[in-house]
Amino acid sequence: MNSVFIKDICEPTLLIDETKCKNNIDKIFTKVKSMGIEFRPHFKTHQSKAVGKWFWEKGVRKITVSSLKMAKYFMQSDWRDILIAFPLNIRELDEILIIAKHIDLKLTISDVYSLEFLNRILTFPVDVYLEIDVGYKRSGFDINNTDLILKVLKIIQKSKFLNFLGLLAHNGLNYFAKSPEEVIENNKSFLAKLFDLKNLLISMGYNPILSIGDTPSVSICEDFAGVDELRPGNFVFYDLMQTAIGSCTVDDIAICLAVPIVAMYPERNEVVCFGGAVHLSKESLKFEDSEIYGLVVDIFDVTWSGPIEDSYVKMITQEHSVIKTTKEFFRTHKVGDLIGILPVHSCLTADVMKKYLNPNSAWLDHL
Amino acid sequence: MNSVFIKDICEPTLLIDETKCKNNIDKIFTKVKSMGIEFRPHFKTHQSKAVGKWFWEKGVRKITVSSLKMAKYFMQSDWRDILIAFPLNIRELDEILIIAKHIDLKLTISDVYSLEFLNRILTFPVDVYLEIDVGYKRSGFDINNTDLILKVLKIIQKSKFLNFLGLLAHNGLNYFAKSPEEVIENNKSFLAKLFDLKNLLISMGYNPILSIGDTPSVSICEDFAGVDELRPGNFVFYDLMQTAIGSCTVDDIAICLAVPIVAMYPERNEVVCFGGAVHLSKESLKFEDSEIYGLVVDIFDVTWSGPIEDSYVKMITQEHSVIKTTKEFFRTHKVGDLIGILPVHSCLTADVMKKYLNPNSAWLDHL
Repeated sequence: MNSVFIKDICEPTLLIDETKCKNNIDKIFTKVKSMGIEFRPHFKTHQSKAVGKWFWEKGVRKITVSSLKMAKYFMQSDWRDILIAFPLNIRELDEILIIAKHIDLKLTISDVYSLEFLNRILTFPVDVYLEIDVGYKRSGFDINNTDLILKVLKIIQKSKFLNFLGLLAHNGLNYFAKSPEEVIENNKSFLAKLFDLKNLLISMGYNPILSIGDTPSVSICEDFAGVDELRPGNFVFYDLMQTAIGSCTVDDIAICLAVPIVAMYPERNEVVCFGGAVHLSKESLKFEDSEIYGLVVDIFDVTWSGPIEDSYVKMITQEHSVIKTTKEFFRTHKVGDLIGILPVHSCLTADVMKKYLNPNSAWLDHL
Repeated sequence: MNSVFIKDICEPTLLIDETKCKNNIDKIFTKVKSMGIEFRPHFKTHQSKAVGKWFWEKGVRKITVSSLKMAKYFMQSDWRDILIAFPLNIRELDEILIIAKHIDLKLTISDVYSLEFLNRILTFPVDVYLEIDVGYKRSGFDINNTDLILKVLKIIQKSKFLNFLGLLAHNGLNYFAKSPEEVIENNKSFLAKLFDLKNLLISMGYNPILSIGDTPSVSICEDFAGVDELRPGNFVFYDLMQTAIGSCTVDDIAICLAVPIVAMYPERNEVVCFGGAVHLSKESLKFEDSEIYGLVVDIFDVTWSGPIEDSYVKMITQEHSVIKTTKEFFRTHKVGDLIGILPVHSCLTADVMKKYLNPNSAWLDHL
């Protein structure tokens, strides 16, 4: 039977399965450590002090975040070695520098102008990573533009206060991979290019570390020789996107949106739930021949079932989700029941929901 | 020059243009009133007591919301006639009934089971609308299933406390229209089907009002004879999706996400801003040949420019937006500047941002 917590849910509620989550943390922590690589997990997926504590208990002390706001939030619970893996935002520089005076804050340099701006203002040493774009074309210095990279390094070298730590890159293309094999191939060519750059810098007297990290490669690949630091984030919860890539199984997904069934339409094998784009986010995924917004599970005491056969979220609007399902579902469910939706992209679902219900204990915070 | 407020923005901030917003309210209010139709605007787009006040000042007293939470929020600022245009969620029934004792709360019935559940529990009169599905296949009784609709009406008729107000429908298919002409056509056939049902019910002695409302039709169509109540919502802000349909011009869009430029890549005519899916939502739109997440504007004192030529948000991840732009942009902008992004879907952007900066005054609240 449902626990008191589950039974009392009236509106869309994000459940967290503590066991699955801790297993995910444990598996990746052990894998990274056993390779002798520094582990600096990205906390942007969970954005939760409570979940952060589960990392702390394993001995993790270095973390990655993607905004100043997140850095400030995790500082409040004793994290002292924080990398903001996002291009330095000079509009926030005053506040960044106040924090950098008090904790070991590491910054990401992705643009010359902002580097020079930072350099002019600094009055004490600050650690910086150089962000390298290996083809994802989001942010970072183009890996093929060695002239610019060397020019940037010169600025850092001449600076009294800038301390160059190493190269930071994100293999965003892995999120478009269709199979583990594709991730392995992507990762190989991604690393080969970065090793060439790292070796060039070493030959010039620099001593850069190489920091990378995306959930698909860290979950799937075995060969990270030459990498110094790994920063995956999504693995803490995983999601359907990661299942589709092959980073995890659907059983590894550690969060699930509990939603009340509000209307049932057996004539079209569809069910409407209270829980829409403002609860799940609007991320979708090609699944078999359909564009889907989630898979459907039954909710148990402190966890949930595997996906209910032939059932998926086919449409979401602001507050509605429409679930395509089977005749069998109508025999076993009724209006007013709670069911669960496994999210397509857990980072965004967690961000819109802003808190987690852990049926083992209570609410867990989110930034 | 920028006002103090604008100048001090360091992180993604949702701006509201009070003049544009009030113009949108005024235009639709005047149009609906001049047709002699009841106006019950949907407040799910703005979810703001402050914006709600602008409606109140025009004389609006009846509103629509899409959740109990929203009804409770607007009750706090004196709204007393509130329709929850969302299928009755029986898990929230205890709280719904407490509120229904104190204000004129109207409920939406979209399922037989929940209607019977409500009927068994009621101890005082409650007004209900019957939700009719005219082909959108989200929620509501299928308009072709007259037997079921009449069965449901019988339950209401026999009930001591249920008071049948009328038929409620939403022409969701209008959001897929590619032109105003298509909206006009859709609306005609949508209304024709509803009139048939309304007339059938009248011939049987019922006296239903007909309540519809979507922003495309209310913005574009002129003929609503036979309709008793209109409930559009998005028009308060509009957005790029509505511009694409032809409901508004891009100049009518009343909210804009201000974002700092954090990196510039002239070699690929691209710029990276701090502002991603957690600020804009992940909604996209086909624009010319690209899938876009927003258009780009310059920010002025209390408003913003028209769209910057050949510039659009081509990619968003959790915190990043990548803007495709032109050489000219690089001559007139630098890292650290604020620029604006017009949202694809303002309801979702407002919901993730949770507050508005009105440079005329101060922060406006959001639920």
